[in-house]
Amino acid sequence: MEQLKDIIKQQGEALSNEVLKVDTFLNQQVDPNLMEAIAQEFFLKFQDLNITKVLTIESSGIAPAVFTAKAFNVPLIILKKEQSSTLNKEDVYSSEVFSFTKNKSYQLFTNKKLIKEDDQILFIDDFLANGQAVLGTLKLLENTSAKLSAIGIVIEKSFQKGRQLVEESNIPIHSLARIKRLDKDIIEFID
Amino acid sequence: MEQLKDIIKQQGEALSNEVLKVDTFLNQQVDPNLMEAIAQEFFLKFQDLNITKVLTIESSGIAPAVFTAKAFNVPLIILKKEQSSTLNKEDVYSSEVFSFTKNKSYQLFTNKKLIKEDDQILFIDDFLANGQAVLGTLKLLENTSAKLSAIGIVIEKSFQKGRQLVEESNIPIHSLARIKRLDKDIIEFID
Repeated sequence: MEQLKDIIKQQGEALSNEVLKVDTFLNQQVDPNLMEAIAQEFFLKFQDLNITKVLTIESSGIAPAVFTAKAFNVPLIILKKEQSSTLNKEDVYSSEVFSFTKNKSYQLFTNKKLIKEDDQILFIDDFLANGQAVLGTLKLLENTSAKLSAIGIVIEKSFQKGRQLVEESNIPIHSLARIKRLDKDIIEFID
Repeated sequence: MEQLKDIIKQQGEALSNEVLKVDTFLNQQVDPNLMEAIAQEFFLKFQDLNITKVLTIESSGIAPAVFTAKAFNVPLIILKKEQSSTLNKEDVYSSEVFSFTKNKSYQLFTNKKLIKEDDQILFIDDFLANGQAVLGTLKLLENTSAKLSAIGIVIEKSFQKGRQLVEESNIPIHSLARIKRLDKDIIEFID
């Protein structure tokens, strides 16, 4: 997606060979027109898959995911990192995710009532790095009869292992910007 | 907003005289068409205020706020509850918020670069209860020259003290659904 790559080149800050800051248009500050354009790209790519729900993880996936849900005209499910105080353990699906960024594990939760057995789910996230969020989501959905039909990623750090892990699952994936290499003030894209 | 009140009546679950669950359309699951309609209401109300940024707190305010930012054609700023590992203390504005729901305090953070001195800010949140999130945001903005121009709330629990606290600040507020009384399976609106 050329518009996205241009914004990453202009506003992204490569701090090291692993860290890309996108605080001005995707994370701390969000450009809503860009979110709508991103959603349109995911819709064009996956419109034939009969998607019934879009799903993301709080909180930085929400902005692109809610516009994607709008484009598909389906609900968005937000997996939470804390269990709701109004739900009991038997009312939720959960799974564990290890965050390499924060070097600790966290749990994902969702209310069982929100996932129907014939749901065909499109997972949307802002970044794909080590793939742990995707794998945690897959693990959570294994407790259900719903299907993870496709994965849409805004920015993929292709030099980390997430892309390979996702490809091994045979779930279709589409990343709007794929980064081959990062280094202090250097951002190189794949093609 | 009649459409919102109808959905609250149909899908909201009043668990007690304080707790209203809206997990199926606003929190854990989000109806994106409703978010767009909500954004349109806020735009109609505040379109003459020369709003330059919409601002919310992660994570349940993001979905209504990002559509509101789209309606105003301005960026959304998301106040974070954890300080970014890529920012130093001198790079952020912060303030403390006490959560009555969770009975503990948390910090709000934002990158100083995101708030300009002539910004006119519209704060959007999913709920107004005790008003602590609004007050924490006001406190954070007192460190800047930006102005909190207006407050838009999706659901106001008018029997709690937040509304009164906001009115004392003289900042214009618009709540799309105002709840007079909650009790087990009872939801009563103001007018």
